[in-house]
Amino acid sequence: MFEEIWAIGIDLGGTKIEMARVNGDGSYRQRLTRPTIAARGPAAIKREIITCLKDMLQEADSPPAGIGVGLAGQIDRHKGSVHFSPNLGWQNEPFREELEEALKLPVMVINDVRAATLGEWWHGAGKSCADLVCLFIGTGIGGGVVSGGRILIGDSNSAGELGHTTVDWHGPPCRCGNKGCLEAWAGGWAIAQRAQELIINNRAAGNALLNIAGGKIEEVSAQVVAEGFKKGDPLARQIIEEVKEALIAGTVSLVNAFNPQRLILGGGVMAGLPELRKFIEAGIKERALRAATVSLEVLPAKLGNMAGVIGAGCLVIQTLGKKEKIL
Amino acid sequence: MFEEIWAIGIDLGGTKIEMARVNGDGSYRQRLTRPTIAARGPAAIKREIITCLKDMLQEADSPPAGIGVGLAGQIDRHKGSVHFSPNLGWQNEPFREELEEALKLPVMVINDVRAATLGEWWHGAGKSCADLVCLFIGTGIGGGVVSGGRILIGDSNSAGELGHTTVDWHGPPCRCGNKGCLEAWAGGWAIAQRAQELIINNRAAGNALLNIAGGKIEEVSAQVVAEGFKKGDPLARQIIEEVKEALIAGTVSLVNAFNPQRLILGGGVMAGLPELRKFIEAGIKERALRAATVSLEVLPAKLGNMAGVIGAGCLVIQTLGKKEKIL
Repeated sequence: MFEEIWAIGIDLGGTKIEMARVNGDGSYRQRLTRPTIAARGPAAIKREIITCLKDMLQEADSPPAGIGVGLAGQIDRHKGSVHFSPNLGWQNEPFREELEEALKLPVMVINDVRAATLGEWWHGAGKSCADLVCLFIGTGIGGGVVSGGRILIGDSNSAGELGHTTVDWHGPPCRCGNKGCLEAWAGGWAIAQRAQELIINNRAAGNALLNIAGGKIEEVSAQVVAEGFKKGDPLARQIIEEVKEALIAGTVSLVNAFNPQRLILGGGVMAGLPELRKFIEAGIKERALRAATVSLEVLPAKLGNMAGVIGAGCLVIQTLGKKEKIL
Repeated sequence: MFEEIWAIGIDLGGTKIEMARVNGDGSYRQRLTRPTIAARGPAAIKREIITCLKDMLQEADSPPAGIGVGLAGQIDRHKGSVHFSPNLGWQNEPFREELEEALKLPVMVINDVRAATLGEWWHGAGKSCADLVCLFIGTGIGGGVVSGGRILIGDSNSAGELGHTTVDWHGPPCRCGNKGCLEAWAGGWAIAQRAQELIINNRAAGNALLNIAGGKIEEVSAQVVAEGFKKGDPLARQIIEEVKEALIAGTVSLVNAFNPQRLILGGGVMAGLPELRKFIEAGIKERALRAATVSLEVLPAKLGNMAGVIGAGCLVIQTLGKKEKIL
């Protein structure tokens, strides 16, 4: 009987751990979600992952090709350790080695956004496309690039930090320390911050948004702004207008630089305001170089929260199961 | 006797045609420069090139691997024709076929900036580096990217339009039709335009620059501004301060997106103001993500005006002589 190659894919983020048994066609089962309690420290999180994995492996009738982990942080490409993860609060933390030792299985660790890009490329909106840019617009903004059929890695494994493209060098400060980054205009945290500032400066104009947030200024989030926008609130419209302009400026830069066939937009902000996509598409077609947009499509991401799990799992299947060189 | 593989490299720009006999080690001889008289139309320019090539070939003791042309325009990758060249005034112009027919030799045609990037990568400041970004800051700004040991091409052969990275979406109009492009702040034409505007608005402040230009406002060029800057003229300093900020914003975006090991800066503006490089380097180290700059070097381009000739010639040697797949 033909035994299918499979792997376990894990997406380890600042708020939750997603894992599942992933097949080579991108399908998955035995999905498992756990909260990431970062405050408990790295050892506790690693123990929790190992326990979940052991349970999952016990139920399996054949061994997996390995374990693939997409992790929200900078990964040492050779050691599979974590240089730095602001979301998890980790610094110079060993990871791959410990999992391999505990499970006696090969483990691959990559950045979570790169894992999600692989997922979308192989089994989502990027299927059978050799040139694409994925932009995930959530609380922060991250990205991944496939060019000429290969995912870009960069010299120190950090290519694709597309949220930190400067769109206005006179712009507001970003969490990265620079000013005017795309993320500082259009990331979820920036939208929330901008809304809170505007409400404080003009209580009357901010009333509707404040009401949606139950009267609590600190509860005014990007979601609240999206809700206000849908109800036609002028302040929310003003904020989203800026978000739109920043996203057009940023994506025009990306299209001119990478000349992708597809620009794939995902993440929580896009899920909350899917209508943004057609504005961005129209803006790009108007403002990017014609040569760079002749065949460009702007598409929504397809795999939602599971992109990272699928990408990390399939990376292991392709690399360890099918011996392809991906990274 | 060992016969070295060689090729003819051509750089066909809006003002001049450079060509030379190029060897696989990047050395060249029989350099020939002709003015490009764009007004005479494409047929005359092609005839001139063919005549020069025939002369060069007659002097040779062995046949070349082929002819490589870097051309200032958008090239059809498959046909080797020219979609559009604003500098030459060409539109949908056949090119490769006609040269091949006239010379009975294989011809490869690529964009001139990509040719210069190949030259710098193989035999200039990018030697033995797998991840680099070249930025050529002249009258316009163009670029090329090598990532993971391969030059990026994009879906429709136009990757690397790095001068049209938006650095300030509220910024001045660019020749490309968009606003706030890096080129619209730091390209030679933009520097000249900005200086002319400022002089007209304030004759007293503009006096020194106007004098350098022989009293003619239309002669105030980027070179004039560079000269004024060196003499300590306050207006020139103000303009170059903006140029510097724009270049830092743009290169920070590129470093965060591509994570290169080397950022190579070339072109006439850099040649006129080589001190810009250390400011850009310091700005990047301060503002780009730490993960993207751990091993970054910011270097001046090495091959000057000959980068395109060397790159186009060596592309032919690698591709046709050594059968490597480059593009």
